[in-house]
Amino acid sequence: MARRPPIVGRFTREEVGLATRNSGMPLEALRYDVTPAGLHYLLIHFDIPYADPAGWRLHVTGLVEQPASIDVEDLKKLPSRTLRVTLECAGNGRGQGTPRYPSVPWLEEGVSTAEWTGVPLAEILHRARIRNSARDVVFHGTDRGFDRGIEHNFARSLPPAEALRDEVLLAYAMNGAPLLPQHGAPLRLIVPRWYGMASVKWLQRIEAIDRPFDGVQQASSYHFRRAPGDQGEPCRLMRVNSLMVPPGIPDFYSRRRTVEPGASEIYGRAWSGAAPVERVEFSVDGAWQEAELEAQGPLSAWRGWRVQWNARPGERQLACRATDAAGNVQPLEPPVDLSGFGNNGIQRIPVTVRG
Amino acid sequence: MARRPPIVGRFTREEVGLATRNSGMPLEALRYDVTPAGLHYLLIHFDIPYADPAGWRLHVTGLVEQPASIDVEDLKKLPSRTLRVTLECAGNGRGQGTPRYPSVPWLEEGVSTAEWTGVPLAEILHRARIRNSARDVVFHGTDRGFDRGIEHNFARSLPPAEALRDEVLLAYAMNGAPLLPQHGAPLRLIVPRWYGMASVKWLQRIEAIDRPFDGVQQASSYHFRRAPGDQGEPCRLMRVNSLMVPPGIPDFYSRRRTVEPGASEIYGRAWSGAAPVERVEFSVDGAWQEAELEAQGPLSAWRGWRVQWNARPGERQLACRATDAAGNVQPLEPPVDLSGFGNNGIQRIPVTVRG
Repeated sequence: MARRPPIVGRFTREEVGLATRNSGMPLEALRYDVTPAGLHYLLIHFDIPYADPAGWRLHVTGLVEQPASIDVEDLKKLPSRTLRVTLECAGNGRGQGTPRYPSVPWLEEGVSTAEWTGVPLAEILHRARIRNSARDVVFHGTDRGFDRGIEHNFARSLPPAEALRDEVLLAYAMNGAPLLPQHGAPLRLIVPRWYGMASVKWLQRIEAIDRPFDGVQQASSYHFRRAPGDQGEPCRLMRVNSLMVPPGIPDFYSRRRTVEPGASEIYGRAWSGAAPVERVEFSVDGAWQEAELEAQGPLSAWRGWRVQWNARPGERQLACRATDAAGNVQPLEPPVDLSGFGNNGIQRIPVTVRG
Repeated sequence: MARRPPIVGRFTREEVGLATRNSGMPLEALRYDVTPAGLHYLLIHFDIPYADPAGWRLHVTGLVEQPASIDVEDLKKLPSRTLRVTLECAGNGRGQGTPRYPSVPWLEEGVSTAEWTGVPLAEILHRARIRNSARDVVFHGTDRGFDRGIEHNFARSLPPAEALRDEVLLAYAMNGAPLLPQHGAPLRLIVPRWYGMASVKWLQRIEAIDRPFDGVQQASSYHFRRAPGDQGEPCRLMRVNSLMVPPGIPDFYSRRRTVEPGASEIYGRAWSGAAPVERVEFSVDGAWQEAELEAQGPLSAWRGWRVQWNARPGERQLACRATDAAGNVQPLEPPVDLSGFGNNGIQRIPVTVRG
């Protein structure tokens, strides 16, 4: 399976097609604790299936004592929970660099937060009596297409211990409303703290197997690799990251910001899959200061922060960086990755403060 | 006010930023009569205002006998209507060409249909008793920024006869739900049959004036121009256009399609601002055939069409074109326009039919 050759410099029509089809969260929507419907980022690998919820069944197969085929309406009768979850695309930030891997050229908008309602996956796996011999649990979507010449349905797996984690949901509702087609209706997986690729949409089959899953989206895609030929490390937990609402007003084309001088507040969000966010710093022209953290809500969701800024006239560069309780801190420069995964390099916003 | 110099060849970071912030409708969503929430295309000129509906008032000013300041809740008590409306961005298709104007590089996804509920604008203008001396009615949004060096709130105008057309709405709901922030909450204008720029979002003030409005988005932007220096013709009614759901399954990166051989159905939509759609043709490798039109629903919305296709193995190019009752027909090649406005050149989809 051949990797696509890297792109140097300006962007291809294919990249623009992916940027237009898929949706970033406009950064001003960082203001919302929960991203409103239609502003949540979207990464659709193939086409959005045109699904009939009435005929949809979830199949539980493989190394289980009680294989099952569950109607979505029956699933909704099981005990459910609602969880606020921040999801980020593993490729967020890919578009900032050159050379870069040919894929969705996110700049920094591939992150959002929603409230997902569903049945804990553990409930279903316990009911099916997953066997001790299971080494991996595979989640098969109905969306189908090609990637690097391989035709497949989108599928990802979790180790049983991770699949049984009580935060992992089979979600049928988002922000209090039925799942929308583009978010995986009628049923999707939600894996809090992991990058978004783990949260398989249009989920149709759960399969417990006795070996590590070797599907293309698991064994080949979604690996951190520093050099061609690296076996790589699989993308899992979201790296510590932060963003701010760009202040002031934009230019339509360049999105370059103009800010009024004087006292103002900068507002942003920070998140990490590994541990709670414990610190956020803000800088103007490289001089760092502490931001004030809002109370931590659900650990699966981003944390708000704010800082007072006395804007002095001139050209300024703003930046922010977060640190989590495990000691992870955002790097000043994007980490090297062949596929543009895990880019948690700090956000930098050039602004003109009016005189 | 300087126009931005055209871009030749590959795409800039600014274009990609606009493609990622703004959202196209994935073409598979052409299947839906009404585009589901969150799949409707979005063109946000500046930032989405962070508005408090509770404090929002609509001001009616200028050449009216009864200036008014109306609370949105009071507006909702007036007689309302719900209208199914297809909107298309005037710049849809801009990204297909080179050289091209630096703006949102839509390929073909800048079109959608929603059901808008609101108060007829005529009702408000009659209540305010618009004067006969009014020559233009200006709609001011709260969204503010720069375009080509000019700082302004987004604003557009309609001639009084057009503003009083009974289809024009002050909309506060979309698809049966309150307007979402990105669609103009709490109040926006909906101007059926016109390109989307006329449907001003985050509407805060209606102003009747005694001369043609000279705001940048009215007098300078949104004009058809074939050569630099042309005064140009303002963009108004949507040109006749059509799209089909791309058949088969895609490659992730290139979006190139693979189709099974044999009998299948191609489904699509067609629309025109000037007159009802009266004919759609479909072609395989340049051989045109008639498509079957679905019953025409509301004239303000797109019309479905379908055609049976017996796919023979090999490389094929599919295309479709619509004709309206005024005799307008889509051109085979994109019309020349300096800003990439009004591109209703036919959609062409290369596919591989499996052997």
